[in-house]
Amino acid sequence: MTSPTVNFHESATTVSAEAGETILEVAQRAGVPIVSYCGGQGTCKQCKVIIREGSVQPKNPASWREETTEDGRGIRVLACQSLVTEDITVEVPLGALGVDPTVRDVDVLTGELVDLSEFSPSTPLARQFALRLSPPTHDDTLTDLDRIVQSLLAEDEQLAPLTTQLGLLQQLPAALRDNSFEVAVAITDTGVANEIRSVRPIGAADSSLGLAIDVGTSTVVAQLVDLTTGQSLGASIRRNGQIAYGEDVISRIVWTQQRDDGLARMRESIRDTLDDILTHLYAQQGIDPQQVIAASVAANTTMTSFLLGIDATTVRRTPHTPAASVLPVLTAQEVGLSTHSQAGVFCHPAVSGFVGGDITAGILATRMHRSEGLCLLVDVGTNGEIVIGNRDWLMCASCSAGPAFEGVGIEAAMAATAGAITSMHYDPKADVIKYETVNDQPPRGLCGTGLVEMIASLAETEVIDRTGTINSDFPSERVRQIGYEAEFVLLWPDESGTGEVICIRQHDLENLLRSKAAVLAGITVLLGNLGFEATDVETMYLAGTFGSSLDVEKAVAIGLLPDVPRERVRVVGNSALAGAYLTLMSSKARDEANQIVSSLTYLDLSGDAGFMDEFIASDFIPHTDLSRFPSINK
Amino acid sequence: MTSPTVNFHESATTVSAEAGETILEVAQRAGVPIVSYCGGQGTCKQCKVIIREGSVQPKNPASWREETTEDGRGIRVLACQSLVTEDITVEVPLGALGVDPTVRDVDVLTGELVDLSEFSPSTPLARQFALRLSPPTHDDTLTDLDRIVQSLLAEDEQLAPLTTQLGLLQQLPAALRDNSFEVAVAITDTGVANEIRSVRPIGAADSSLGLAIDVGTSTVVAQLVDLTTGQSLGASIRRNGQIAYGEDVISRIVWTQQRDDGLARMRESIRDTLDDILTHLYAQQGIDPQQVIAASVAANTTMTSFLLGIDATTVRRTPHTPAASVLPVLTAQEVGLSTHSQAGVFCHPAVSGFVGGDITAGILATRMHRSEGLCLLVDVGTNGEIVIGNRDWLMCASCSAGPAFEGVGIEAAMAATAGAITSMHYDPKADVIKYETVNDQPPRGLCGTGLVEMIASLAETEVIDRTGTINSDFPSERVRQIGYEAEFVLLWPDESGTGEVICIRQHDLENLLRSKAAVLAGITVLLGNLGFEATDVETMYLAGTFGSSLDVEKAVAIGLLPDVPRERVRVVGNSALAGAYLTLMSSKARDEANQIVSSLTYLDLSGDAGFMDEFIASDFIPHTDLSRFPSINK
Repeated sequence: MTSPTVNFHESATTVSAEAGETILEVAQRAGVPIVSYCGGQGTCKQCKVIIREGSVQPKNPASWREETTEDGRGIRVLACQSLVTEDITVEVPLGALGVDPTVRDVDVLTGELVDLSEFSPSTPLARQFALRLSPPTHDDTLTDLDRIVQSLLAEDEQLAPLTTQLGLLQQLPAALRDNSFEVAVAITDTGVANEIRSVRPIGAADSSLGLAIDVGTSTVVAQLVDLTTGQSLGASIRRNGQIAYGEDVISRIVWTQQRDDGLARMRESIRDTLDDILTHLYAQQGIDPQQVIAASVAANTTMTSFLLGIDATTVRRTPHTPAASVLPVLTAQEVGLSTHSQAGVFCHPAVSGFVGGDITAGILATRMHRSEGLCLLVDVGTNGEIVIGNRDWLMCASCSAGPAFEGVGIEAAMAATAGAITSMHYDPKADVIKYETVNDQPPRGLCGTGLVEMIASLAETEVIDRTGTINSDFPSERVRQIGYEAEFVLLWPDESGTGEVICIRQHDLENLLRSKAAVLAGITVLLGNLGFEATDVETMYLAGTFGSSLDVEKAVAIGLLPDVPRERVRVVGNSALAGAYLTLMSSKARDEANQIVSSLTYLDLSGDAGFMDEFIASDFIPHTDLSRFPSINK
Repeated sequence: MTSPTVNFHESATTVSAEAGETILEVAQRAGVPIVSYCGGQGTCKQCKVIIREGSVQPKNPASWREETTEDGRGIRVLACQSLVTEDITVEVPLGALGVDPTVRDVDVLTGELVDLSEFSPSTPLARQFALRLSPPTHDDTLTDLDRIVQSLLAEDEQLAPLTTQLGLLQQLPAALRDNSFEVAVAITDTGVANEIRSVRPIGAADSSLGLAIDVGTSTVVAQLVDLTTGQSLGASIRRNGQIAYGEDVISRIVWTQQRDDGLARMRESIRDTLDDILTHLYAQQGIDPQQVIAASVAANTTMTSFLLGIDATTVRRTPHTPAASVLPVLTAQEVGLSTHSQAGVFCHPAVSGFVGGDITAGILATRMHRSEGLCLLVDVGTNGEIVIGNRDWLMCASCSAGPAFEGVGIEAAMAATAGAITSMHYDPKADVIKYETVNDQPPRGLCGTGLVEMIASLAETEVIDRTGTINSDFPSERVRQIGYEAEFVLLWPDESGTGEVICIRQHDLENLLRSKAAVLAGITVLLGNLGFEATDVETMYLAGTFGSSLDVEKAVAIGLLPDVPRERVRVVGNSALAGAYLTLMSSKARDEANQIVSSLTYLDLSGDAGFMDEFIASDFIPHTDLSRFPSINK
């Protein structure tokens, strides 16, 4: 008996199914990215696919649901609940395609977060020296290694102690003699020593590049930096391919636990994503991967664990303790980065399973650990991470916001690329949506800021009530019922750039509200635990890709952010990436990054009695208690 | 056409020959150890084998020599000069068998060389701690690594900084949880930090063992040490299997250069030798290799390079500069030692290609680097190595003594095992040899000391003249001519324990004299260059296996050692192994071992104008200038 096959129509991939496999499992094995936030539990309903040919068996007949498609030529089912028992052809609708594999360019970081003046002198994680050594003679019998060490110390005696590894020693005699003793020597600062990591033709010293990398749960960014000047050359972004294995870190950890090679495959996935980004970046900048001799990575604890092949199971279980906080400086070979194999890799330390290197990097970049006044750092990503404190103390918390504002799982959402709605307003009298799009292109969906403005506008116009429920009596054709669910049509087919209707469904709104409620509740509880209110905050840093493009006024209006005076709000962009840039360039920054961990206390919201109450109270627009939002209330 | 085969009769090995291969090359590939001091150049004449079936083609017809064996049933040829072109059966006579694979027990080191009191406190290269950690809780969210680090620092705050590697982090979460947080943690002192190298069940901390290893060109010794108490548990010795690839370091380096996998095979050979020794040692002591968490290796520069897979070509070429002097602390896995894979491995540093870690270890063990008076350290191994100096300065030289006194290539020689002649005297009047043997067993050959006494006695009785030439007119049947060569019969078949004649051939005597001349000339030149004479030496340390069993009086009599007052001579045994023991047990010793390199100057005798003259003058018994040997002259 031959195995049944699954033909994934759009990706022209046909794969044999193993006994008992679901469509989702086959897809994951084949690298076809299907959204699965719940990790295949059948609860998130995101993995809806269309069976075009053949039929499937229910994994769990009691909860089985299937529906015929509008065109009548297919059956819509959940991929995770459909056992493959015969040859089938499957269509994965765009909405269920979890990972957009497109690598896009983004602007490199600028501004005070990446100002190196406070972290001088420049002491990059790795440096190269062009050494013109004299060959050994009868009167100069220094060993190969000592010849290099003495020459390096003559350049800068601060480089001591200098160490090396066996691999380099094995290559050393040939490396020196093949290059007539004129060599480029790369050293990496391991924290306890400078390790000589490569010896190669002297021309290699002409260019020493590094990478600042932000591995987010949903998106991954890499920025290419000239280590000699500190100048950023370019940056690229891509969706994290691991989204195919779960929306958030918990479902991904569960996924790795369910199969022997789970961790290895999760690791492979992030390596593939990084490979894509680096390949793009290198091609665009016209550089050779061998020029890259250092990388600094800011990522949350789970992403760091997956990247390094460290079991993250403990992150999931209370008390969410990761394997390590401060990590050793590694080699690119160990990590699996497409750079020079011996490039030094610094990973920002985590404080707990849910406050990772991305946050400690963000603290470093905002310098809140040096501030006199009370600071609040909010990074709304897939997790909402919050830090308050000053130069004397720091406290942090994390809340599972989910990636709704990052657009994941919202059918009408898209990245902030051409055609994305960044700003919108509904005029109920004219029944017209006014909007702006990226590059003024025909509208194709809403990016994060568009989603916030959409909620603000629909709430203001009472299309939705304060619980986010669509008013089914609202006098507009835009409000309609599809199956069990109400939806609000933003754009009719003839208005949209896609030629299809673009609408917000009731469950999209619920997702978005839960997301914002988690963030607001986290901030409130963290401040409250220390006896503070929002108005005590001297500076609120709004970090993250989403935060950086946000209209603060609207974010406060819907109750995503607390009602702090607007002049105290600083939108700082990708502070994790900025932190990675700083640690890439300065040993002082690396020391501070590692020290921040000691002064940072983690508050586990899941163990906080008040959090759930506050979360429920925050699942309103903007909050059940309007007195907390005086500026909105006015 | 099928390849011709070589059947090595005694080892029951049949191997296909590749095109153009000699018998020696086939033997080396097959692991059949045949003595080849010249590395296959056809000059040392040591690789004589007997063709029993079939015939061979001369590699170089002009210099071809073959002789029929006594029994008339074979042809004696040089294995390195015989091309294999048809199936042959080869007998390798015992004299040509290079490597005795027997592992023997030796006494563990005792005495002042291994006295740790001057190197206290005890800080072994690796240590294990039994940690009973509390599991993380809601109120104690330390990471796994920090939990271990803090616990270790509580045991001893001097352990900071503590580092680790990715491999350990990957294992850490399971290692802690599988063992209910009660674990044995092993750390290795890398010189710049203490590296956490293993975390395993707590019972492992009950026993922490280490190895002191001396890799000599001819013999390899390993001593098992309890790292907690410093007590030595046992020691074993074996011939270095690399002898099959050349007698001395130069011919072995040449051998590695002649084939792509030369270095890899040389590395494999020493690993095999060490494996044999360790397997024996472990079985004898009833221990598990996993108990061994550290090793300290003292070896000459070439042996260290081969062990670590570092090209030693530069050692051969002037100015004989090795790849490195002080080496990083490695892992057993990198080195290929059969211990715990993450055991720390310290290799004693070399000063030059010809003054290696064995000598710096010897200096450490004799403490001559701390002495006020002038010291002379002489280690007669395959190379004769000489150091003079005191606490202010040290100077060293090396001379190619060859392994004659170690018995290699001397047909009548053997290791100092049962039946070996340790002491002998020829009575010409009675025409009788008087001797003592190890364990009073019937005589089977001469060990190193026996060889020295044999020369002294034959010279005294004028069987040989001062040039070492056998007096063919000597009135005894013991002096006879075999083929082109004179020989002196020590034991007739009915006197020997082997039932065969035991004799010294003219070329044996020449080898031994050249050996002793190299050592004496080296000492004389080194002393002379600094304006000293033998009588200025306050303490002469006689090191090495050979040196330790030597009758100093006889060694001076034949001019192997200079004529220094006997009470100043200290026979110290295997000082290299003693140094390895010290560095295994003490960080102070490791620091001093690495510092010795800085104060030690190397004199290249091959570049010294006077050395060749002195060598020629020393190729006499005891020397051409008898006034240098007043105590003998009397």
